[in-house]
Amino acid sequence: MAATLTPEQLAALQNAATHLRMESVRSTTAAGSGHPSSCCSAADIVAALFFSVMRYDPKNPKAPNNDRFILSKGHAAPLLYAAWAEAGLFPKQDLLKLRTLTSDLEGHPTPRLPFVDMATGSLGQGLPVGVGIALNAKYVDTLDHRTYVLMGDGESVEGSVWEAVEVARQQQLDNLCAIVDVNRLGQSDPTMLQHDMDAYRARWTGFGWHALVVDGHDVAALVGAFDEAARTKHRPTVLLAKTFKGKGISFMEDHPNWHGKPIPQGAEMQRALDELARQLKPNGTPPVIARPASAPVARPAAGALPAPPYKIGDSVATREAFGVALEALGGVNPLVVALDADVKNSTYTEKFGKKFPNRFFENFIAEQNMLGAAAGLAACGKIPFAATFAAFFTRAYDFIRMAAISQANIKLVGTHVGVSIGEDGPSQMGLEDIAMMAAQPGVTVLYPSDAISTYRLVESAAAVKGMIYLRAGRPKSPVLYGPEERFPIGGCKVVRQHASDVLTIVAAGVTLFEALKAHEQLKASGVSVRVIDLYSIVPIDRTTLLESAASTHGRLLTVEDHYAHGGLGDAVLSAVATEGIRVHKLAVRAIPRSGKPDELVDHFGIGARSIVEATQHIIK
Amino acid sequence: MAATLTPEQLAALQNAATHLRMESVRSTTAAGSGHPSSCCSAADIVAALFFSVMRYDPKNPKAPNNDRFILSKGHAAPLLYAAWAEAGLFPKQDLLKLRTLTSDLEGHPTPRLPFVDMATGSLGQGLPVGVGIALNAKYVDTLDHRTYVLMGDGESVEGSVWEAVEVARQQQLDNLCAIVDVNRLGQSDPTMLQHDMDAYRARWTGFGWHALVVDGHDVAALVGAFDEAARTKHRPTVLLAKTFKGKGISFMEDHPNWHGKPIPQGAEMQRALDELARQLKPNGTPPVIARPASAPVARPAAGALPAPPYKIGDSVATREAFGVALEALGGVNPLVVALDADVKNSTYTEKFGKKFPNRFFENFIAEQNMLGAAAGLAACGKIPFAATFAAFFTRAYDFIRMAAISQANIKLVGTHVGVSIGEDGPSQMGLEDIAMMAAQPGVTVLYPSDAISTYRLVESAAAVKGMIYLRAGRPKSPVLYGPEERFPIGGCKVVRQHASDVLTIVAAGVTLFEALKAHEQLKASGVSVRVIDLYSIVPIDRTTLLESAASTHGRLLTVEDHYAHGGLGDAVLSAVATEGIRVHKLAVRAIPRSGKPDELVDHFGIGARSIVEATQHIIK
Repeated sequence: MAATLTPEQLAALQNAATHLRMESVRSTTAAGSGHPSSCCSAADIVAALFFSVMRYDPKNPKAPNNDRFILSKGHAAPLLYAAWAEAGLFPKQDLLKLRTLTSDLEGHPTPRLPFVDMATGSLGQGLPVGVGIALNAKYVDTLDHRTYVLMGDGESVEGSVWEAVEVARQQQLDNLCAIVDVNRLGQSDPTMLQHDMDAYRARWTGFGWHALVVDGHDVAALVGAFDEAARTKHRPTVLLAKTFKGKGISFMEDHPNWHGKPIPQGAEMQRALDELARQLKPNGTPPVIARPASAPVARPAAGALPAPPYKIGDSVATREAFGVALEALGGVNPLVVALDADVKNSTYTEKFGKKFPNRFFENFIAEQNMLGAAAGLAACGKIPFAATFAAFFTRAYDFIRMAAISQANIKLVGTHVGVSIGEDGPSQMGLEDIAMMAAQPGVTVLYPSDAISTYRLVESAAAVKGMIYLRAGRPKSPVLYGPEERFPIGGCKVVRQHASDVLTIVAAGVTLFEALKAHEQLKASGVSVRVIDLYSIVPIDRTTLLESAASTHGRLLTVEDHYAHGGLGDAVLSAVATEGIRVHKLAVRAIPRSGKPDELVDHFGIGARSIVEATQHIIK
Repeated sequence: MAATLTPEQLAALQNAATHLRMESVRSTTAAGSGHPSSCCSAADIVAALFFSVMRYDPKNPKAPNNDRFILSKGHAAPLLYAAWAEAGLFPKQDLLKLRTLTSDLEGHPTPRLPFVDMATGSLGQGLPVGVGIALNAKYVDTLDHRTYVLMGDGESVEGSVWEAVEVARQQQLDNLCAIVDVNRLGQSDPTMLQHDMDAYRARWTGFGWHALVVDGHDVAALVGAFDEAARTKHRPTVLLAKTFKGKGISFMEDHPNWHGKPIPQGAEMQRALDELARQLKPNGTPPVIARPASAPVARPAAGALPAPPYKIGDSVATREAFGVALEALGGVNPLVVALDADVKNSTYTEKFGKKFPNRFFENFIAEQNMLGAAAGLAACGKIPFAATFAAFFTRAYDFIRMAAISQANIKLVGTHVGVSIGEDGPSQMGLEDIAMMAAQPGVTVLYPSDAISTYRLVESAAAVKGMIYLRAGRPKSPVLYGPEERFPIGGCKVVRQHASDVLTIVAAGVTLFEALKAHEQLKASGVSVRVIDLYSIVPIDRTTLLESAASTHGRLLTVEDHYAHGGLGDAVLSAVATEGIRVHKLAVRAIPRSGKPDELVDHFGIGARSIVEATQHIIK
């Protein structure tokens, strides 16, 4: 990284920026959609980074000690693609396939591309992801690469940005550098602060960052500022780059009506390309990309998890069993890391945190940053477990959505589910978590009822690649299974059955124990019912459900401590939908309130009493 | 509001604070759970506000010109309840019913209580709600009341807080005053900044607020700071109150292990109460509550909406028809207000914004603040429509959750749903919005397919009390219905039927038009199918679905531009679940990508081709 550039180097960088603009114009015009104006404002920043500042292997974007670049303003994707093409990763002519079904050069970047760590395009997510990557480099793998996150100015209103700003400062991430492309114009209006660079500086310095205001079209100044950032210790740096949207194209530059619009084919595009071509310097030399220091990362194999420390009849909350399993996992698999958001003494991640402090990241009360950082850590090959109350994952649902699109290898554990948490009331009850997680493509949804199944499913979650959600309860519940029992993902357990069963009850969590109570009461009145522990909701054991339904007069009754739409019951319904089976569903159908856990389970119609009544009604 | 207090007034306030502490201790001990330590840190702040600073009618918490108080740190609910009891709204002995099933004094405040505008307890939501209330006072109803929001210090890491901070500054909300109870201790650890009051000041002043650091246990200083806040024009003020958790109780004060723990019954509680009693001043006079200036707000009746300006066969996007309907609504109903998050030229709320600028609120790219402000406006009797891309409502899902718990009268419109948006790719596609909205209790979910039904459903959304979500598409689609057609919420339209129908297709949005194409193709091959426009997903027209299924061999085929779990198909399944009907579901079952809208609809298996194939398979 050079603080001063020769005239030839400078010309090379300026030319690279111009080429990036030209490619961005060409590709968006070819696609007939896209954001060339947002590419042009950031072209000098990207040229400075890719062709002077960053150390990376352009043929191997996944090399562990590459400097990382995250395009948080994902709508400038054509600029990112042009930079990697210019760096030599793929042919420039591919750029013209932008936004077509057969190309991975999508409208916004996704990890289908090897140089994208996390899908962007929903604004405000890049910096939290960058925090995760920088945490990995500084505390887990101790690599010396740097992480750069390019954001938009409008984007910096998103609250998630300030969560990441706060956590990055707290963690002293001097290996992280944010760049705000302050191009003054949002989608529908000028931004709040327009070009008030002092106001931007006050915000970032107020949050403890080193902030540098720089002319975002002065490549030499940019290179100098990046150099100063790299020399700044114990705190992250932000470059507040004053730029103009559409820079370099006279009819687009700083004009408000060019957001998200390609230049039409024909004379207008030619005029833009001609204008840009005239900006090329005669004496530019080809830019040289600095390579990273070699730093192979050991990937030690995971050992076997010790047997779960529980026996049948013990009384353990599934959230606690999760914490115990996570701690055990930490001991056998150095890739496992954990994150929490100031509830580690309730989710029991504190057990892991105390034992493996360099692999545990406290996010304070910043759930969005927690999710973004988890995705960043996953992009570095880690297996992150992120835990909070299930209800508070709703705060980070957009991050979960983008992580699903990215097929991120993250494991989410939501505790304190349902009305069975009791007195704290509805704000703390996770009652939509199955709906929100199961809706996302490729997400596995697990719902263990006892400590043994929790322990084994946490083990499986770490072993299986992909996004996994595990639902954990607050109250203690009896251990149902022996330590040798196995719980394959996609399976279920038939915990009560008899040839004379007239109905199959499908439940999990607290409602499984209510179903077992109902089973006893019904048995006493001469009615025999089957009971299934549906510990895996996605994928679901359709075969066993159909077999059980067939053996019990084609009748299923689902019971869940979750709202009625999109939960366990709907997962069962969907699995058997084509078979004409009658399914009855008990779920929480009203706005809950405070009360004792048992009272609430009964009051909201998911307790043993309601199960018995429903059974009697169904078999009548 | 007095800037200087007499010694008697001061003693009265100090005694009020001590009484609030005593009641908070008593009620949480009686409940056996709760957060007395978090109440004690804020008791002086609440006493100053309720018994010196705020002007309100303690017998009528909903009086429109009352100063408003929002307890954003909802876990200090016992303190809020004690304040209203002390003010005389209800008997103090009711406080001992805290957290029981038969009392509305829940673990965290909800609007079941007349003095609560919005449920809190999920942190970081109070300030956005306060922004909405302050916007209403300043720009809509032009009332002179002030709005106070009490937050925790740990809470101020939540990004949603900084979205509200930014919007409040931009809107110059000098009628808004935030208070941060900087008690140094979070749930599981000390907070990031502990008692670094200068760091707090730098953050808030950096964001353009007037920030006052104050001793949060010095009632006279607090009253003086509130007075300075009231005199500060053109910008909001924050009081950064340095406090101690558990203040006033020697064994609890500033001790880290007292988060969320009641004092045990018996000697320990008696010791706490004795200590507090000794702090009572002998010469306190009863505090006097200042009444608000009378300011009756006119509630003009809404007029009738003009006829929709469309005829059958016109080509109009439903998002545009929403914008047209919203503008028309604005003309006939002065209670209608609108909010957007920098996509108003895509959601078409800009039509309303241009015509009714004092009732339109641009949130820039801050979806969480948009939702909180909408709830605040609804608490002031307005009918807020908040619009953004459906995908970006995921960013505010926790606010949607809390608004549902609050039964807030807000109307959400999500545009750009499904893969049919095309080239922008997955980050911009709303594919889980039905799942997330329908999961919430009491939320109506509408999905119109053409401009006429959109127009009429927007009209109904404004007329009906409660939370409503309307799903709108990006592409233009043909107008199907005449201007006189009516669309009752909970209904559907059978758009194609014949006595020989062998299957019922249920669809909405782009898939309805695909179903109509499939209908024609199947007809040409001699197969007759029924087609239902399911414009109301929650509530759902179970009767028509069952009748149609019964008339078409008990077969239903659902088709939706939404992920497979929790969408239109699952709503249909759930409605007919107990009847043994066979339901086949077409939905988006993979991670989508960029491409042309028609290509993607076909590629992801929800187009006419897939419908025809599925039909042939089902009837085989």
